[in-house]
Order: sequence, then structure tokens, then C-alpha cells
Amino acid sequence: MRLALDRPQLISLAAGFTDEATLPVAEMRLLTREVLRDRATARQALQYGATPGLPALREQLGRRCAAQDNIEPVAPDDILITNGSQQLLYLVTEALCDPGDIVLVEDPTYFVYLGILEALGVQARGFAGVAGLEQRLAELQQRRQLSRLKLLYLVSYFRNPTGHTWSVAEKRAALSLLRRFERAAGHPLFLVEDAAYRDLRFAGDDVPSLLALDARRSRVVYVNTLTKPFATGLKVGYGVLPPLLRRSVLRSKGNHDFGTANFLQVILARALATGLYQRHLPVIAAAYRHKRDVMVQALRTYFPASTRFTEPEGGLYVWAELQPPRPTGPRSALFRRALAAGVFYVPGELCYCADPTRPVPVNALRLSFGAATAAEIKKGIRRLADSLG
Amino acid sequence: MRLALDRPQLISLAAGFTDEATLPVAEMRLLTREVLRDRATARQALQYGATPGLPALREQLGRRCAAQDNIEPVAPDDILITNGSQQLLYLVTEALCDPGDIVLVEDPTYFVYLGILEALGVQARGFAGVAGLEQRLAELQQRRQLSRLKLLYLVSYFRNPTGHTWSVAEKRAALSLLRRFERAAGHPLFLVEDAAYRDLRFAGDDVPSLLALDARRSRVVYVNTLTKPFATGLKVGYGVLPPLLRRSVLRSKGNHDFGTANFLQVILARALATGLYQRHLPVIAAAYRHKRDVMVQALRTYFPASTRFTEPEGGLYVWAELQPPRPTGPRSALFRRALAAGVFYVPGELCYCADPTRPVPVNALRLSFGAATAAEIKKGIRRLADSLG
Repeated sequence: MRLALDRPQLISLAAGFTDEATLPVAEMRLLTREVLRDRATARQALQYGATPGLPALREQLGRRCAAQDNIEPVAPDDILITNGSQQLLYLVTEALCDPGDIVLVEDPTYFVYLGILEALGVQARGFAGVAGLEQRLAELQQRRQLSRLKLLYLVSYFRNPTGHTWSVAEKRAALSLLRRFERAAGHPLFLVEDAAYRDLRFAGDDVPSLLALDARRSRVVYVNTLTKPFATGLKVGYGVLPPLLRRSVLRSKGNHDFGTANFLQVILARALATGLYQRHLPVIAAAYRHKRDVMVQALRTYFPASTRFTEPEGGLYVWAELQPPRPTGPRSALFRRALAAGVFYVPGELCYCADPTRPVPVNALRLSFGAATAAEIKKGIRRLADSLG
Repeated sequence: MRLALDRPQLISLAAGFTDEATLPVAEMRLLTREVLRDRATARQALQYGATPGLPALREQLGRRCAAQDNIEPVAPDDILITNGSQQLLYLVTEALCDPGDIVLVEDPTYFVYLGILEALGVQARGFAGVAGLEQRLAELQQRRQLSRLKLLYLVSYFRNPTGHTWSVAEKRAALSLLRRFERAAGHPLFLVEDAAYRDLRFAGDDVPSLLALDARRSRVVYVNTLTKPFATGLKVGYGVLPPLLRRSVLRSKGNHDFGTANFLQVILARALATGLYQRHLPVIAAAYRHKRDVMVQALRTYFPASTRFTEPEGGLYVWAELQPPRPTGPRSALFRRALAAGVFYVPGELCYCADPTRPVPVNALRLSFGAATAAEIKKGIRRLADSLG
């Protein structure tokens, strides 16, 4: 951030910021005008709300979840509104975990979540794919550590940082693995599905969430955001909580701030009710698809042919691995040369949890096509390739 | 809340909601129009911001602190923007305290803060006034518990729940007591000044905050909100942090939600820059003064002459004590009869921390004149008096 502010010519392929040009300025003009036009509605929006969130917004979201996953409507009481999805991740992890507990995360995963775990004194263990998950669970059982395992954290759509999406079959397998090991754990094992990028799909078909697979709605915590695909400056997230967690997470929300800004919730409820939100999704999809194409094309043009990279169907990130392996870390020659050349990225190794039982690849880069323009992406990738020397 | 929604005729003298009629609807129409008019400004407002908060807002607040307390401008880097002042109280307490640590709170105090302490596993110890504080500190020293003491929490303006304001002399005395016992504690003792009601003054003169007394700015955490006196639906708080706490509290904010909604901050920075915020203060002052008068007059008219109550010069609360003492708790005959008569209040005993070393008065009521209209306040106090039987 500070770097970016100090050197405006710097091209950031690092930050997970969203596309500037497609921010819904006209939509927000309309929404704020409508919300503030009528005095009674305006006053409701400008007054405190309820801790779990605006009922009208939770109703809209319950219907939206049902429509997206082809399930029964989710009751508003099962939904909690938070300050972005990040806060919900924090609240759920805080509610479930004591210091020393274990959480399973993907290799690699969303690095800010690793910060949450560290802050709460929780141990992270990495795994890759369903087979890796089963192996990890078996290991924990063997070492009699299952009793410390509390949850599995999954970024299931266009994962930050790789862009990978979990298929229904993989999700079903993960959920059934958790159920299988639950008896040995001696307590419920929850699956936290971070679907923050779900509405940022620009190719292919949507995949049902774990809500559709957890028939009794008892083990899945579904976490999403309304504002990453709309206007990140509003920062409103939401989640569907299983009954066992509802009370403790809500109490925690009450202690943290007793409710997300009501004004933002009234705006977003209206954005959903009027369809302005939904109609905005194809607009950003077109923009991100184009920028993904530009990034992938630039990687093909400027990077060594041996480089491996993902071509995600949504989200904000391409994950590139240098072949033969070369270090990309914050102290690597590449990182320093890239910075000198005016471009920066997130070194892949930062996206792996501290887990001494497995090696961490040091040759990957997380490249964001979120905030940079198409021209900047092309120039940035070329500068990066030049920095390879 | 639920009660109030289910029974709309119910008069709530309990909730700390703010006055509806004076919510700044016209001001918000103007501010949102201006913020969204220019495309570049609008985009900045609708994009993610920095974790510590919008620089322009922190500059405004730094100048405002300086003007209010007649001190050197507070550097923007010393200021953190949060989701209401509540979140800052949580972050600071989380950063300073481990489970089992001790925090000193006033008798009685803001009961939601007691919830934070409980959630963090921190012990609360109550005190009353400067003499009570000194006694408590001496006791802790005697029992060799000073090493577990981390901070003193003070609601210094129109305290929730009593309406009491700390004088400069009392503040100076409290700060110097903390300094005196610091050596025995073996670590810094911080004073968290909750000034959330400061801008809700409707009579008398402002009192300098502890920032003006802590010359090196090293031990005082100043906590305030922009939205309680403006529009609670925006929920933006801020604090001035001493250098020792800046890094840990900021990291914690990063883990919780990495920054308060940028859109709200841009609106509030503009409200301060244009003076709309400042010009709104006399409007609410007039409204609350009138409602305080109505409440006090109704207490004089309908309550037994023996009843003691405060006449605050600001804030939202009158604190009444029944004489001779009669129970007011959630299970008391009075509370049940009042509810049946269609009025409710916060039983005073809920505002005392769990501290078995001193008795808790059970004869007090916290009566809010914040949200209710003048007519409701009058009717509510009469219903309450009738419930006394």
C-alpha cells in the first residue's frame, strides 16, 4: 500500500483491489438518492440497526442463496451480516478455536486468513486436494491430534491465490471425510466455505456451494461478500451459520461492534431488490475476463515457455510457477529486480501456512489482474519477465 | 430489540438509540451527492481503503482533537478509524490483555464493555471516584495483583449510565495515580478514555480530554465516535493511540476486517471539512436538552419525592435510584409490572461488573431519553411511576 502510494508509476500486480473503471458510480448515485429521498426510509437507514443485520437484507440474501444453490430458502435468522467476509472468518474462527487448536487450510491459501490463525494462536496445517486432505486427517488421527482439529477452511471458488475452483464431487468428498473423522475427533468438525469470489465468475458454469450438500445444514459455514463484486468501499459480508454456531458467533459480533453500519445494509438490500446488483455482475465479468486474457497472453508472450500458470474462470488471480524452479520470495533477486523495474507481486511462498512437516515451493507468484488496467497488466508482466534476467 | 419490534406500543427507555427527528437526512443527501458527483472521487470512495483509515479523515480528526483540547495537532498516523468506538474498545483491550488480566472500571459503567471483558476472559474490578480508584490500586498492590492490571477504563463524558462527567482535576488525579502505581506493576498502565458522548453536550462547558494531560501522549488511549452525534447508521469511530499500542492494535484491526468501509469515511471527512458535522451539533443539543428536561420534569411530577436522579448536561441517560431502596432488576416486580404497563428500562445492576468484593446497588434504573420522543418519555415515566404501586 505505502509503496504504491509513494511511487505512483509502480504497477501493482500484488494487491487484491478490484477494477476501478467498473465501480458502480451511477448505480450508487441512484441507490443513495432513493434511500434518502423518503424521510422515514432515510431515518431508518441513518439509525442503528440490529446486531445480526438488517432483516430486509437477510431476507434478500436467504432467497439469493436458495436460488444460487437450488435449495430451500435460507431463514434470515441463519444469516449474519458482517464488515466484509473477513470479519466473519475472524468471528467463526474465534468462536470455534482455542489457542493450540488446529485448522486445516489448503496449500496454498488466502494469506490473510493465516494472519487470523496466528493472531488467535491456532496452528495451521496445509493440505492439497481431497487425497491430501484424507492423508492429513489420517495423520492427525494417528498422532492423536484430531481432538484439537476444529475446522477446515476452503476457498472454494477461484481460490485466492491459485484461481482453482472445487468441483461438487470434491466438495462432497471433503464433507464426507470430515464426517468420517468426526467420531474420532469427539466433536463437530466444521467446514468453512469462503465463497468470496463466487460472483466474480467470467467463464464456465457456477458450482453449487457446500450448502447444497450439507442436507441438515449442520456443519457448513458459508461465507460470502456482497461488495467485492460491487463496491469494495462498502465492505459488507455475510454468512450462513449452522445452528450450533449461531449463538456464539452472534455474541462475538455483539462484542466486536454490535452490528455492521445500517446505512450500507439498506443500500445493498435495495441493490438486490431492484436487481442493480445482479445486473452489475456481467459488467465486471466482461472486464475481468478481458484482463485475465491480457495477463495470460502477456505471460505467453514474455515469459519462458516452461513457465506454468493457471487460467482461472473467475476471481482476480493468476498463479505462475517458474520452471525450472527459481526463488520468487521477498528477498529473492527477482523480487528486488522487479521492484526496481517498477512492478510487484505477492511471492507465492507467503500463501503457505507455517507447517514444518512439508516443504513450501518457493518458485510461485500470485499475479492479480484486479486493480491494474489492461495496459498496466501487459507492461507489468513484461517488466517482470525482463526482471527474470 | 426483539421486544420492541414485537410490541410497537412499548415505550423503550432502555436502548441507547439516538433521536430520530434530528437525524441529518438533508445533510446526507448533500454529502452523498457531492461524494458521488465527480467520477474520480466517487471511485475512490467505492474502492477499498487503507487499514488505519482514510488519510483525509484522519487529518481532519487530528485537527479536531487539537482544537477541542487546545493541544498540538495529532498526527494522522496516531489515529485509527474503526467500526464505531465499540470496535476500538475491543481491539485495544484485546491487544493489552491476556485472559486472567485485570481491568479497572467505574461503578457503574458501560455494560457492553463488561461483555467485551468477559469475552476476552479478563477480570473487571469496580471503583467509584478518584478515592475509590486509589483504594483499588492499593488493594491490588497489597495482594500482589498489580502485575495483572493492564488498563483503566473511563467513560469520561456524561457517563453511560449515570450521566456523570469527570472534571479536569479528577482526570489529572486518575492519570497520576496510574503513573504512581506503574513501577509496582512493572509495565505501562494505560488509561482508556471513552469520550463517545463528548459531542452530545447540551449544557455547560466542554472539559479537556486526557490527551491534554498526558503531555508525552504515552499512556492515554482516546476513544471517540463521529456517528453517535451525527448518524448512528454510519457507525464510524476513531481513536488516538499511544506509540506503544499503535502497531499491535493496527495489526489486530487488519486481522478483524482490514479497514472500515471507505465510503463512510469519505462521507464523514467531507462532513467535517464542510462544517456540516459541526453545525449539526447544536441541532441535536437542543433536541436532547429538551428531552432531558421532559424526563427530569416527569420524574419530579410522577415519582416519589424521595427518588434520587441525575440531571446530566449531555449524553442520553438519567440515572435514578429508588429511595428507600427497592429492587429494579430483570426479575423484580417493578420490571415485570413496567413491562406489562408497556415501558422498559435498563436495570441499574446490569451496569456493575461481577466483583464479589463489593455489594451492588439493586435500586437503580438507567433511563434513556435518546430515541423516545418527548411525549413518549413523559408517558413512559408516568407508566413507570404507576408500576411502583
